[in-house]
Amino acid sequence: MTNTAPENIYLDYAAATPVDTRVLDAMLPYFSDVFYNPSAPYALARRARTAFEDARAALAHCIGARPMSITLTAGATEANNLAFASVDGTVLTDAIEHESTLSCARARRHILVDVTREGFVTPSAIAAALTPDVELVSVALANGEIGTVQNLREIAAVVKAERQRRLEAGEAHPLWLHTDASQAAGALSLNVSTLEADLVTISAAKIYGPKQVGLLWASDDVKLRPLVLGGGQEGGLRSGTENVPGVIGFAKALQIATAERTQESRRLAQLRDQLQRTLLQEFPWAVVSGPKKSRWRLPGLLHISFPGLEARRLVILLDQRGVSVGTGSACAASKMRISHVLTAIGADEATAAGSLRITLGRPTTRAQVEAAARIIIDVVNAERQRLGIR
Amino acid sequence: MTNTAPENIYLDYAAATPVDTRVLDAMLPYFSDVFYNPSAPYALARRARTAFEDARAALAHCIGARPMSITLTAGATEANNLAFASVDGTVLTDAIEHESTLSCARARRHILVDVTREGFVTPSAIAAALTPDVELVSVALANGEIGTVQNLREIAAVVKAERQRRLEAGEAHPLWLHTDASQAAGALSLNVSTLEADLVTISAAKIYGPKQVGLLWASDDVKLRPLVLGGGQEGGLRSGTENVPGVIGFAKALQIATAERTQESRRLAQLRDQLQRTLLQEFPWAVVSGPKKSRWRLPGLLHISFPGLEARRLVILLDQRGVSVGTGSACAASKMRISHVLTAIGADEATAAGSLRITLGRPTTRAQVEAAARIIIDVVNAERQRLGIR
Repeated sequence: MTNTAPENIYLDYAAATPVDTRVLDAMLPYFSDVFYNPSAPYALARRARTAFEDARAALAHCIGARPMSITLTAGATEANNLAFASVDGTVLTDAIEHESTLSCARARRHILVDVTREGFVTPSAIAAALTPDVELVSVALANGEIGTVQNLREIAAVVKAERQRRLEAGEAHPLWLHTDASQAAGALSLNVSTLEADLVTISAAKIYGPKQVGLLWASDDVKLRPLVLGGGQEGGLRSGTENVPGVIGFAKALQIATAERTQESRRLAQLRDQLQRTLLQEFPWAVVSGPKKSRWRLPGLLHISFPGLEARRLVILLDQRGVSVGTGSACAASKMRISHVLTAIGADEATAAGSLRITLGRPTTRAQVEAAARIIIDVVNAERQRLGIR
Repeated sequence: MTNTAPENIYLDYAAATPVDTRVLDAMLPYFSDVFYNPSAPYALARRARTAFEDARAALAHCIGARPMSITLTAGATEANNLAFASVDGTVLTDAIEHESTLSCARARRHILVDVTREGFVTPSAIAAALTPDVELVSVALANGEIGTVQNLREIAAVVKAERQRRLEAGEAHPLWLHTDASQAAGALSLNVSTLEADLVTISAAKIYGPKQVGLLWASDDVKLRPLVLGGGQEGGLRSGTENVPGVIGFAKALQIATAERTQESRRLAQLRDQLQRTLLQEFPWAVVSGPKKSRWRLPGLLHISFPGLEARRLVILLDQRGVSVGTGSACAASKMRISHVLTAIGADEATAAGSLRITLGRPTTRAQVEAAARIIIDVVNAERQRLGIR
């Protein structure tokens, strides 16, 4: 250990991303200068309205959608809640969803499907669980904790087949496929026609945009129902004076993410693979969770466990050395317990308890990854020594 | 009319306020620097958590409340919705409430009480309408369109008496008094013990803070129920990663509003009275709505009607001369129709159709008010001439 103040190496980009300076620059004129209420009737206010609707159009363009099919919300959690509010019937989701999806499911009649050890929701599991009263299937495009990217098109095919069956049988229950694409947005294409979902959630906060800004895209077939009533903004689906700077920042963030996605994903995957190799070389007994195949794992994410060690202690020791990593999803206010995701993929207790989630991001450099690897190795070795392991 | 580009004189502060530069300065470090997820377990994240909870404590301090009794929301509209979600029974409100309150009421069994011609909700009207199944009474502290400040303590006394009656009669229905203090926040004390309400809504957007940031204060007796489910932030009452910069801005905005309230209210009332005198001197037939007594009207607000003229045209003509005013509440996305507030106070059609809402704010100067008065006089005279009125 050194006594000099360490450089901070933040490696928890799945929990929060800094607002990109290009995004903040785009937002700044709309706080104190073009601050007008977009619903007001004079020219100044129309500047705010135009900028806001231009931002909606830019968001729509990034996902290959029409502007009117986008409802802007105060974050992805609210967007997920809005998606669930569109149905009355049973909902079907999987055991490794984000808390916002699981909580919405638990508040209704719901079916929970298991996932594979790599975290995949298989089309066959969906097909087996899909009863005639299910009205919503919700599967996140990518998991934020172990990084599993779902084969959403195969799941969509199952949903379509059931929809076709209902049509032919004259059954009235609608059936929609919702995907929370919050964690996937920086890494994968979110084109709504190739995703083949009916409802898509995207968060600004995970793509270097502002917090509590998100959207729900809905196909023309879905009739959404508002959670928040009032002045009738967002076509009556989300009342409240619009967050003009936030939505302008969101649009800029999604434009940047879309433009840089391919190159940045490759860069992050290389850095992640390097980190994984270095750590596994030192600790061949460490357990990496999530899909073995790189293309099915979020590029910047490494979920690695040191069975026998305690992640909580590792996080504190790493923190003291200037390295910030997560133990799981930081999105839940109640942190520091065994993750429901690890339980669902069948991780044993020692593996679950010794797990770190390391996520790289846009500002992450090769030098930072190399320094972080050295510090992780130091800390893990020190802990093993302290506990007298081997 | 002049051909030189006019200076813009914005006089619609009840519709939107610019973010105060002191507020923006307080927010800025939390976008790209201290951007961490407040729920994450390392030191950097604790900086975000601490700043966020300090902001909550500052908000609480401004209203004489405990920090834990404040739920932060994405705006006043959501806070009002959250207040209404706390009850199952009938709700009672008045005919001049903001759309968010009226919409929440309409979605439930509800009773609507009339107001006086000055826009007062009288305690006797509340008492007469208060049936044993009412669980929530919602009356805004001040009306945003005609500026009426309610005597909330007298209304609270009626609510208390009914609560006492139910207690003695062994009736189970709870009864809460909610007040939307969004429009009042810059002008009146929001101390929760003197307000004597059980639930109070406050908006950052009306006090030179950011849009889509608000709070609901609730007394210990009220059990709130969440609208948005998920990670369990805000004590489970509003899930979603916290809007750290937004809430820090909100706190700064409320601190400034609280500190400057007395002096600023006096300044605004003087400017408003000057504007009113100038306009009534020129147009003695013009109609000023809202309470006659200045202390019962929001200090920066002048609601004035020119019967026989069309407000929509006046707004456009004023806009062309660089003066931005509203025709009513700009908070409703569907604008430019006869206001429900004017209907409720019994304004005749001509008065309602010729109404301007002029609201002064922190950046408003005496010179601006004088220039605006001249332009309003010009425009009204030109319109009368065009229409051949006297």
